[in-house]
Amino acid sequence: MEKLFQQIEEHASLYQHWLLSMCNQPSISAKNIGMQEMKELVIQLLEDLGADVEEVVTAGYPIIYGQIDNGSKRTLTFYNHYDVQPPDPLAEWMSDPFKARVEDGQIFARGVADNKGNIAARIAAVHAYQKVHGDLPVNVKFIIEGEEEVGSPNLKKFALENPEKLKTDAMIWEGGMRNIHDKRPHISFGVKGICFVELRVRGAAFDLHSSEGAVVENPAWRLVWALSTLKNENEKILIDGFYDNILELTEKEKAFFQTMDYDEEHTKTHYQIDNFLTGVTGLELKERLTAAPTCTICGLEAGDTGQGAKTVLPSRSKVKIDFRIVPGQTPKMVIDLLRKHLDQHGFRDIEIEQLAGLLPFNSDSENPFVDTVIDSMKEVYEEPPIIMRNLAGSSPMEKLLANTEIPAAQIGVANTGSNFHGPNENIYIDDFIKGIKATANVMRHFGDV
Amino acid sequence: MEKLFQQIEEHASLYQHWLLSMCNQPSISAKNIGMQEMKELVIQLLEDLGADVEEVVTAGYPIIYGQIDNGSKRTLTFYNHYDVQPPDPLAEWMSDPFKARVEDGQIFARGVADNKGNIAARIAAVHAYQKVHGDLPVNVKFIIEGEEEVGSPNLKKFALENPEKLKTDAMIWEGGMRNIHDKRPHISFGVKGICFVELRVRGAAFDLHSSEGAVVENPAWRLVWALSTLKNENEKILIDGFYDNILELTEKEKAFFQTMDYDEEHTKTHYQIDNFLTGVTGLELKERLTAAPTCTICGLEAGDTGQGAKTVLPSRSKVKIDFRIVPGQTPKMVIDLLRKHLDQHGFRDIEIEQLAGLLPFNSDSENPFVDTVIDSMKEVYEEPPIIMRNLAGSSPMEKLLANTEIPAAQIGVANTGSNFHGPNENIYIDDFIKGIKATANVMRHFGDV
Repeated sequence: MEKLFQQIEEHASLYQHWLLSMCNQPSISAKNIGMQEMKELVIQLLEDLGADVEEVVTAGYPIIYGQIDNGSKRTLTFYNHYDVQPPDPLAEWMSDPFKARVEDGQIFARGVADNKGNIAARIAAVHAYQKVHGDLPVNVKFIIEGEEEVGSPNLKKFALENPEKLKTDAMIWEGGMRNIHDKRPHISFGVKGICFVELRVRGAAFDLHSSEGAVVENPAWRLVWALSTLKNENEKILIDGFYDNILELTEKEKAFFQTMDYDEEHTKTHYQIDNFLTGVTGLELKERLTAAPTCTICGLEAGDTGQGAKTVLPSRSKVKIDFRIVPGQTPKMVIDLLRKHLDQHGFRDIEIEQLAGLLPFNSDSENPFVDTVIDSMKEVYEEPPIIMRNLAGSSPMEKLLANTEIPAAQIGVANTGSNFHGPNENIYIDDFIKGIKATANVMRHFGDV
Repeated sequence: MEKLFQQIEEHASLYQHWLLSMCNQPSISAKNIGMQEMKELVIQLLEDLGADVEEVVTAGYPIIYGQIDNGSKRTLTFYNHYDVQPPDPLAEWMSDPFKARVEDGQIFARGVADNKGNIAARIAAVHAYQKVHGDLPVNVKFIIEGEEEVGSPNLKKFALENPEKLKTDAMIWEGGMRNIHDKRPHISFGVKGICFVELRVRGAAFDLHSSEGAVVENPAWRLVWALSTLKNENEKILIDGFYDNILELTEKEKAFFQTMDYDEEHTKTHYQIDNFLTGVTGLELKERLTAAPTCTICGLEAGDTGQGAKTVLPSRSKVKIDFRIVPGQTPKMVIDLLRKHLDQHGFRDIEIEQLAGLLPFNSDSENPFVDTVIDSMKEVYEEPPIIMRNLAGSSPMEKLLANTEIPAAQIGVANTGSNFHGPNENIYIDDFIKGIKATANVMRHFGDV
């Protein structure tokens, strides 16, 4: 271990050079800027490691697939993406987003946190291990897509059509970060799923004068009544069967809550709220963030939304609802139960359109890989890790991992102030180096198992 | 009567000339176009009748007050306004909105229906009566404001500061029209009031990622829950005490419903609805339109209202609600009860802003003037009148008449296809002439009483 970490420190400037060269190459999938050049740069780095690289054609940008198969017992796969968000709002950047700025131990560039820093860290870890030991302790695969920032529209198809490329014993996912205030690193083993729907109600063929509200149905009222049957003020979701299939938390998963930090006072001050929802606090709050499914109104619209008193009876209303779902639930299940619920409550006329859907994904906490990652992290970071059964958010993890037994961990080089998708995106060089060590250490221990 | 009506017919082209000269003079209060010129034109017409005319200064456009006091027992007042709506959308007019077009028995011009046709009809009626009888059977007053189309902001102050000018036994209000399909004329004796409010709910200081919906309060949900306590699916308004002070309909008022027509089949086809609210039909529908208070959501807004799935936890939500209120209720009463209701249901934090308020106004159906108007109309129109205790909508009638015992009737020269406030506003010349006769006949019979 000593030698491995020493090697990484000695090659820090080389690894940083790789990272900066990637940051200086724009690769905005949403705008088709620099995607080809970035792909070639990544392929070159992989080939320099000795990986067999293949470009997998998709309907969008190709997926870079790399493999170093040395006949090891186990295979570890790194998922990353070579595309980044557009740099808007450009005016708020203190330097060119595609000309990495190194200052006071930080690197500022679009994509340095999300997730070129992680691409570089995975490649550097492999490189360092090879330098020290000649050969890797595991077979390694790289799956690096070019469409994560536009919703990974072709990733599921890739998984379905390339089962042999997906054959792996574990996966290291992008993501992961470190607290700014106490430097504790985050490890998470999954994500919530999402079922995002729009409900639409229709009234008359056109907006009427509001005095007609005396006798003509109001789709805004119908929407209110329908919604009020979906969730009550205690946050209980009232859709029949909604909670039925949810997997219970294991004791080990519950223990993870103990490691989580959530600065309630800071958050309350920052958000300017008096309390959390229904007054939750402490472990219960962490459990709710991690393990509770949600039913969140993201948008509501009917009639006149301008200034002043416009006396209109709306002809249409709509709501956008984001259901975050947890292991045992699927978007389809939510849609089906919601349809049934609305029908049974007299809202057959309400139209449901699903706008997004992702399965939840959770690693089995009993899989040895989970402890391997946790232990490997503890050897690299002095600060005790924050361990999350899953994030409160969602990600395309399920597109590769749904219905597999493959465990996956999100660890990475970013920090809680990295400003993903925002201006002045940044990482600390120290976190980059530690991220390389952590990756290398996971490989090492996973090879030991 | 014969001579009076004959006189009106003989002077038809003179009266039409008066009307056209008013229509050709723009008078858009919202844009301060032609107001001064229009005011002078009206004053000239009144002075030509021998009226004592006064311009009452207000914070906005002056109110024209005219009086012909011949010592009669009774006084009849005509309320009108000399301003009109802007002519937008201009492109949809088939001719210049301020150059009256006479074609096939119709006059097309902005304001011809609302309400220069009525100004001309009132003046013409007085003129004709004077020509035939030398003197009027009643004292006559004219109150012609210049701000009706911008909400009559100075009318109430005028009423409060000029009680002697308001001294009258009855009033003829603008409005009134004739069915296009069967030519039945409308008479109405009041209007619903209105209490228009905006409710606002606040959550965090700014929009959050929707995954935070697991632990941070959602103002869109709070709004839904609050609204669901206000009215149920049977259209019962659940605010405690809301119905308590409503005056019961008299037998005579109920009888008015029999005269009302409402083409349910046509309306359903036109609006593309299967049924009216809660399935009401027939007399019950007419009663609900006339006498039921309403609680109508006119606008609803929270979070993201654009296309697609934006995962946001809204920080704000708002609703606009239009309460149409009926005799016995006041806007203040509604606001007070609503505040109390929200407080009692745990929604102390929801802010209420009143955006508009008008008292309901109803003539006492036992006042002899009511029958005088009905009988006078029956003598002019062959078709039986549609008699309404009050309109489903609201108007500034209350600004002059609230808390008085003065009865008022809305009769006039427009038709159900007049397209008030829209392009190609129009009236039929025959309706204009009948409107003059009806006005003159009311004067005559009111003098008889």
